[in-house]
Amino acid sequence: MTDTLTRLAATIDARKAADPDSSWTARLLAKGPEKCAEKFGEEAIEAIIEATKGDRTRLTSEAADVLYHLLVMLAARDVPLGDVLAELDRRDGTSGIDEKASRPKG
Amino acid sequence: MTDTLTRLAATIDARKAADPDSSWTARLLAKGPEKCAEKFGEEAIEAIIEATKGDRTRLTSEAADVLYHLLVMLAARDVPLGDVLAELDRRDGTSGIDEKASRPKG
Amino acid sequence: MTDTLTRLAATIDARKAADPDSSWTARLLAKGPEKCAEKFGEEAIEAIIEATKGDRTRLTSEAADVLYHLLVMLAARDVPLGDVLAELDRRDGTSGIDEKASRPKG
Amino acid sequence: MTDTLTRLAATIDARKAADPDSSWTARLLAKGPEKCAEKFGEEAIEAIIEATKGDRTRLTSEAADVLYHLLVMLAARDVPLGDVLAELDRRDGTSGIDEKASRPKG
Repeated sequence: MTDTLTRLAATIDARKAADPDSSWTARLLAKGPEKCAEKFGEEAIEAIIEATKGDRTRLTSEAADVLYHLLVMLAARDVPLGDVLAELDRRDGTSGIDEKASRPKG
Repeated sequence: MTDTLTRLAATIDARKAADPDSSWTARLLAKGPEKCAEKFGEEAIEAIIEATKGDRTRLTSEAADVLYHLLVMLAARDVPLGDVLAELDRRDGTSGIDEKASRPKG
Repeated sequence: MTDTLTRLAATIDARKAADPDSSWTARLLAKGPEKCAEKFGEEAIEAIIEATKGDRTRLTSEAADVLYHLLVMLAARDVPLGDVLAELDRRDGTSGIDEKASRPKG
Repeated sequence: MTDTLTRLAATIDARKAADPDSSWTARLLAKGPEKCAEKFGEEAIEAIIEATKGDRTRLTSEAADVLYHLLVMLAARDVPLGDVLAELDRRDGTSGIDEKASRPKG
C-alpha cells in the first residue's frame, strides 16, 4: 500500500509525457519549471494568509494545494519525492535543534 | 508502518506541549502561528529560487525544509496532516483539469 | 512636481471609493485587503524568479508590478505611502548596518 | 530635490563597490542577486502577514523593508530604479483595467 503523497507524485510523473491538453497537470508541466515554481509560490502565499487568519478549513485546502504544487515543481525538475522524504528521514536521526545549527548558512 | 510525513507530523505535534528550550521545533511553535507561517514562507521562497536555478540537490534539501515547515504551520493551527491528505485523496477522484475548473475562484 | 510613486498612490486612493466595475484597481480593492496582499505576493514571487534568472527587462516589468501592488495593499489598509517613505527617511539617518542591528527581532 | 526612493537607490548603488564589511547593504550585495532576491521575498512575506492581520504600524515598517530590499534586488541585477518608474509612468497613460488585459499572460 502506498501513501497519498507517493501515489500523487506517481500520477504527476505520468503526466510529464502526456498531451498538455489531456489534463491540468500536463498543461502546467508543459509550461516549464519556472511557471511551476510560480504556481507553487502563489499557493504558498495563500496558505500563509489562511494560517495568519486562522481559518482551519481553508488552511487545510490551501495546504493540499501547496503539496500538489510542490510535487509538480519537483517533477518539473526531475527531483524524485523519494529523495526529499529520504532527506527528512535522514534529518530525523538528529535532534531538530542541533541539526539546524549544523547546516551551513546560505 | 507509517510513512515519513505522518511520522514527522506526530513528532512535531508532540513538541507542541514541550519546553521551548528542548528543541528547535518546540521553540518555533512557542512563537505562534504567524512566526511559523513566516518561516514556511521563507523556505518556500528558497525552494522557488532553487527550482528556477535548476539545482536539483539544493531543491531536494529546500523541498524537505518546505515540508517540515508546512507541518509546523499546520500544527500551530491544529490542522491534522490527515485532513490535508484526505483532501488530496478526495480530489484524486476527479481529473485535475476538471477539478480545478470546478473550484470557486477567490 | 510630484514623483511617480506618490502620484500613483493618489490615483489608487481615489479608486477606493469608485465603482468596482470602473477600473481594475477599484475591482481589486473591493475584494479586500487579503486578496490585495495575495496579489502583491504573486507579483513578489514573479520578481524573485526574474531576479534569479537575471532577465533585466522582465525584472523591470515585474518590479513595476510589485510597486503597484504594494501601493494597492497599503491603500487597502489605509496606510499612507508618505508614512512608509518617512520611515525610510528616518532609517537613512543611521548606517544600514547599525540600524538593522538595533531593530527588535520578530 | 530628489525623492526618498531615488535617493535611497543612489545610496544602495554606491555600496555596490564598497567593502562588504563597511555596511549591511554592501554585505548583502556581496552575497549576490539570489540572496538579495531571497531577502526581498522574506520581507514580502512579512508585509503580507501584517496586511492580513491589519496591524498598520507594523505594515508601515514592513512596507519600508520591502522597498529597501526591492531596491537592493534591482541593484544586484543592475536594473535602474528610473527604468521601473518609467514603466509605471508608461502604464499610467492607459486605464489600469485595459492595460492589464492587454499584457501577455505568462
